[in-house]
Amino acid sequence: MLTLYGDRQSGNCYKPRLLMELRGIPYRWVEMNVPGGETRTPAFLAKNPNGRVPLLEVEPGVHLAESNAMLCWLAEGTPWMPEDRLQRAFVMQWLFFEQYSHEPYIATSRYWLHYLKQPEEYRARLDEKRPGGYAALGVMEGELSKRDWFAGGRYTIADIALYAYTHVAHEGGFDLSAYPAVRAWLDRVAAQPGHVPMV
Amino acid sequence: MLTLYGDRQSGNCYKPRLLMELRGIPYRWVEMNVPGGETRTPAFLAKNPNGRVPLLEVEPGVHLAESNAMLCWLAEGTPWMPEDRLQRAFVMQWLFFEQYSHEPYIATSRYWLHYLKQPEEYRARLDEKRPGGYAALGVMEGELSKRDWFAGGRYTIADIALYAYTHVAHEGGFDLSAYPAVRAWLDRVAAQPGHVPMV
Repeated sequence: MLTLYGDRQSGNCYKPRLLMELRGIPYRWVEMNVPGGETRTPAFLAKNPNGRVPLLEVEPGVHLAESNAMLCWLAEGTPWMPEDRLQRAFVMQWLFFEQYSHEPYIATSRYWLHYLKQPEEYRARLDEKRPGGYAALGVMEGELSKRDWFAGGRYTIADIALYAYTHVAHEGGFDLSAYPAVRAWLDRVAAQPGHVPMV
Repeated sequence: MLTLYGDRQSGNCYKPRLLMELRGIPYRWVEMNVPGGETRTPAFLAKNPNGRVPLLEVEPGVHLAESNAMLCWLAEGTPWMPEDRLQRAFVMQWLFFEQYSHEPYIATSRYWLHYLKQPEEYRARLDEKRPGGYAALGVMEGELSKRDWFAGGRYTIADIALYAYTHVAHEGGFDLSAYPAVRAWLDRVAAQPGHVPMV
């Protein structure tokens, strides 16, 4: 059975969990105390030298890191990854957009505000993260004004990856009221059969 | 013919160019003046709403963004992407590691130092980027102490993605002398048949 090391409050950890739930794949969840240093112990670093969760044990002793790499591995040959080569490329484009242009702004702000609960300590950094976060939401709004899903004409892992932190963007201080297409898409994702909430 | 919009000094733009050269795929290169604002014009934003290079026109009027998504698209069905499902997952793991844990530290430092040539203006931020950059190099050193290539037992797009900014890490102020396995791997990549330098 697959084992997922994760943190229930982390959107990155939610991504592979959501897809395993949608696919009906049994797995064991190991809750990790990240602020408590459990991802920096020698035992955990032997599993993932980068010291991060999620971490997925795919075979006994074989560990895969990076939430979006797990999505690719879990989605192969399923409806969550398009068969068409160009549409697969667009899925990849949105997965990298999520990790480079979205997560470092929206998830990081949420980490400081919602997870560490230290708005004053991080005030200047939160202000710095605002423009990048809203820029990412603007790119998503433009795309979702033209189509219902990010790639392949259906719900794919591109949507799962972007849903993870967008649906809790308000916990990072981001206001989605000016992004109606994003809000409608969040509703479509949550209405998918087998959907499970993050917490 | 494929058209690649890029900046000759950018490691991200070098990635798809290197793979197209290795594969012998003809392409047209359009040099973009990034500091001059050419990626933020209405005409370019119509092609890539995220306003970044590289951008690859894969069919007339159809544009693919994100350097590592281009690598995936260009490598499919070639020796640069493993056939084994788990090894493909490890390729993806390293591609996401590169964009999240490597590029934001090493490439960003190089941008300030080598591209903008503003060491004093960015002194405090450069200092902030040091630990993350060296942490990424440490993870790479550990991996390359055990194997010659990052995934699949051969030269893949995981190596291409990580080579792009590692081989110019010194231009971002990073000293590779304590990373002998990384340096030996850089030499292996540069010795591959058909290799072309970045500039």
